[in-house]
Amino acid sequence: MKDLVFQPAKKLARLIRTGKLSASEVMRAHIAQIERVNPQVNALVTFLPERGLRAARALDARLARARGKAGAALPPLAGLPIAYKDLVPTRGIRTTWGSPVYRDHLPEQDHALVERLTAAGAITIGKTNTPEFGAGSQTFNAVFGATRNPWDLSKTCGGSSGGGAVAAACGMLPFADGSDLAASLRNPGNYCNVVGFRPTPGRVPAWPNANAWDTQSVLGPMARSVEDAAFLFAAMAGPDPRAPVSIDEPGRVFARPLARDFRKLRVAFTRDFGGLPMDPRVLEVIDAQRKVLQSLGCVVEDACPDFSGATEAFETIRAVSFAARYAPLLKTQRHLLKDTVIWNIEQGLRVTGEQYGRAEVLRTQLFHRMREFLSRYAFLIGPVNQLPPFPVDTDYPRQIAGVKMGNYLDWMKSCYYVTITSHPAISVPAGFTRDAAPLPVGLQIVGRHRDDFGVLQMAHAFEQATGIGRQRPPVAL
Amino acid sequence: MKDLVFQPAKKLARLIRTGKLSASEVMRAHIAQIERVNPQVNALVTFLPERGLRAARALDARLARARGKAGAALPPLAGLPIAYKDLVPTRGIRTTWGSPVYRDHLPEQDHALVERLTAAGAITIGKTNTPEFGAGSQTFNAVFGATRNPWDLSKTCGGSSGGGAVAAACGMLPFADGSDLAASLRNPGNYCNVVGFRPTPGRVPAWPNANAWDTQSVLGPMARSVEDAAFLFAAMAGPDPRAPVSIDEPGRVFARPLARDFRKLRVAFTRDFGGLPMDPRVLEVIDAQRKVLQSLGCVVEDACPDFSGATEAFETIRAVSFAARYAPLLKTQRHLLKDTVIWNIEQGLRVTGEQYGRAEVLRTQLFHRMREFLSRYAFLIGPVNQLPPFPVDTDYPRQIAGVKMGNYLDWMKSCYYVTITSHPAISVPAGFTRDAAPLPVGLQIVGRHRDDFGVLQMAHAFEQATGIGRQRPPVAL
Repeated sequence: MKDLVFQPAKKLARLIRTGKLSASEVMRAHIAQIERVNPQVNALVTFLPERGLRAARALDARLARARGKAGAALPPLAGLPIAYKDLVPTRGIRTTWGSPVYRDHLPEQDHALVERLTAAGAITIGKTNTPEFGAGSQTFNAVFGATRNPWDLSKTCGGSSGGGAVAAACGMLPFADGSDLAASLRNPGNYCNVVGFRPTPGRVPAWPNANAWDTQSVLGPMARSVEDAAFLFAAMAGPDPRAPVSIDEPGRVFARPLARDFRKLRVAFTRDFGGLPMDPRVLEVIDAQRKVLQSLGCVVEDACPDFSGATEAFETIRAVSFAARYAPLLKTQRHLLKDTVIWNIEQGLRVTGEQYGRAEVLRTQLFHRMREFLSRYAFLIGPVNQLPPFPVDTDYPRQIAGVKMGNYLDWMKSCYYVTITSHPAISVPAGFTRDAAPLPVGLQIVGRHRDDFGVLQMAHAFEQATGIGRQRPPVAL
Repeated sequence: MKDLVFQPAKKLARLIRTGKLSASEVMRAHIAQIERVNPQVNALVTFLPERGLRAARALDARLARARGKAGAALPPLAGLPIAYKDLVPTRGIRTTWGSPVYRDHLPEQDHALVERLTAAGAITIGKTNTPEFGAGSQTFNAVFGATRNPWDLSKTCGGSSGGGAVAAACGMLPFADGSDLAASLRNPGNYCNVVGFRPTPGRVPAWPNANAWDTQSVLGPMARSVEDAAFLFAAMAGPDPRAPVSIDEPGRVFARPLARDFRKLRVAFTRDFGGLPMDPRVLEVIDAQRKVLQSLGCVVEDACPDFSGATEAFETIRAVSFAARYAPLLKTQRHLLKDTVIWNIEQGLRVTGEQYGRAEVLRTQLFHRMREFLSRYAFLIGPVNQLPPFPVDTDYPRQIAGVKMGNYLDWMKSCYYVTITSHPAISVPAGFTRDAAPLPVGLQIVGRHRDDFGVLQMAHAFEQATGIGRQRPPVAL
């Protein structure tokens, strides 16, 4: 089959299920694409082709035996290859968290996500790159080096789910998992022209998890289309008794058709989330999207909630989470930690109980301001990032549109402003810069708390209207 | 009707609904009981009999007009009087949080609980007493004084939902709301011979709430029977878009019949939650309950999860919550705060980010240890408190069974050990001490996370077997 690796994941699963394509063919095509493209972009950092082929052959044998009987009883992702973000522990498969501390770490147990997607039929063929402990939306680390942007190899792919975004963009995987605290599903999606979906906290169970009540960091899907992101999400989402903040709704509700009539729906549009510095190349693409939304029948109004306090709340809660997870490492392995991680842990060590408490209060106010705002508008729509992909040898941008960034998190405000409100948000391809090597620019769609399906529907309608998400990076063709 | 005020709430609601009893009769009976008994116990601190009668008459008029038509369309609690804990804001009705700072405070909006129970037909007739800001399981404050134990007026009723527990015990209210961070539904239930149910966090939405993600403090019901606690709980529980940690399940699932066969069910029994000091008067009652559980067919084994780290986690998270909510008051109104509240705020101000993070990690470990423990046992059953009601003029007990208490929280460990694991727990009447004025002793039943219904079922079976909960305090008869 021509272009097998760029077929929709949902279609590949159907072809395998109905015997039109063998799991081995699908696996071989992906392995070939990884072998051809990965050396240029460094997205998969652990690669287990034989493990993948063995599992695919076993599935084919099972299908052959069942032929004419009950082939349809296969789980939804049966035969599709997957490679987990290297922050997600995989039993017996090297998991480094992008840190030299865990250079040779072999977990003894799978993460709940791995259990779940394996039960859904996905075949693990490796791990995808991430920054050290997922810190920063730039995917590089001292263990594996940097992952490069497939649209321009001199640029960053974003992060922290950078390896997964690049793998999906390049047809090395049909889709990818990731996680998002500041921006880490939306930013690499945006920078790689794929969809990255940050769901409502509680949708995808995280276990093991140092803090089971952490509702900042969430797991979610990335894919070349909203439909495939929803397809993977349906297999990821749903409650788990090991995650006390779980939302009860089963994942299958996200497998429904996404088509919806958006005529007369009021949506809020922001160019800059209330005055953030914006690179003009991003604004040029974003400004053009207003018409696309209007073409869907939406009533588009310029409006933005008040994000006062977002930086204080986000930085404080994040810093304490870093202190909780990594303060012991700081004492014993400081020489193996990168500067920004050290800074973030030390920031957490300086936080007082009063400051932490105040951050929770601010966060609550931000949640309610967004909630009230979205009682007047169905969605808040704006840019994903404040600048396009930057040089891969820069750890983080020092300025945007002439405004200095104070720390390695500042350039992610357009994403973490949304994180701190606890509302779901998606990054969907929207256009390209006019650089010599055009760089992807995405649109961020923020929806009501728990209305993850609505966000997917809006993104799907937008994607259908623009067709931008169908463009593939030259390096992968 | 004889003993109207000691009839089950569920029955009173049915009699009103079917026209066998008017809402006004029910209201007048409760008002009379309050006027007769409250001066001795000081449970209701704001009392609005005319408001109650007006609403009852309006309901009766509505029922008269609808007679023969659709009387059954009444909401479940129609006509039942309620008085909210004075930590729960009530629009236009004095709400003090038991603090002189708010001596004359009139909230501008109702708490979500008040909205919900009002919509369910309950008629607000006042507010029930609570310690200052709910701090400590002893119900006294500088605004209203102490609430007394109806079984022995020289003793404390416990707290912090002490006013509500006493009101329900004495037939001044058919049931009562409360909230529980350390022990505040279970302890006063225990000390007043009524049922106090701490549900799984997320069951009853809290709004307004300084920290919308607080999963330590929960709202819940108290009543003279498990059935009535479940009846009120069914009206309290269910999601609210203003509470991001809401569990989706609607409250009505708790209105199902509670009867269940417990034969061959394995339950764990602990006398002391792993070595806590226990007053022998409590142990005497608790030890006798093992046979009751066996009489239900349960397989009772001595077992207890490991609660290491519970005190550190609980004290740290609680202290930060106090700092977050009250540090501004400490600066401006210190002279109006009680010593233990000042201590608790200052403790929070001293917490570091590292300590807070570590508390979240410990709490997560405690959740998983209890979860794994309850995969082997259906319930963990033990005492509610480590000592019976103590003198009402003591702010907190300084020792238990010869062991010194280090601070005002230490004597609540048998309850807050459970709080910190985030599992649901109920206090159900189990017996009396052999003191000259016998004092109630309850049993604590801890169930699986989100298995609130199971906890209610187990408590119901236990209550049916002992009949202890049917005994009424002499002062109220």
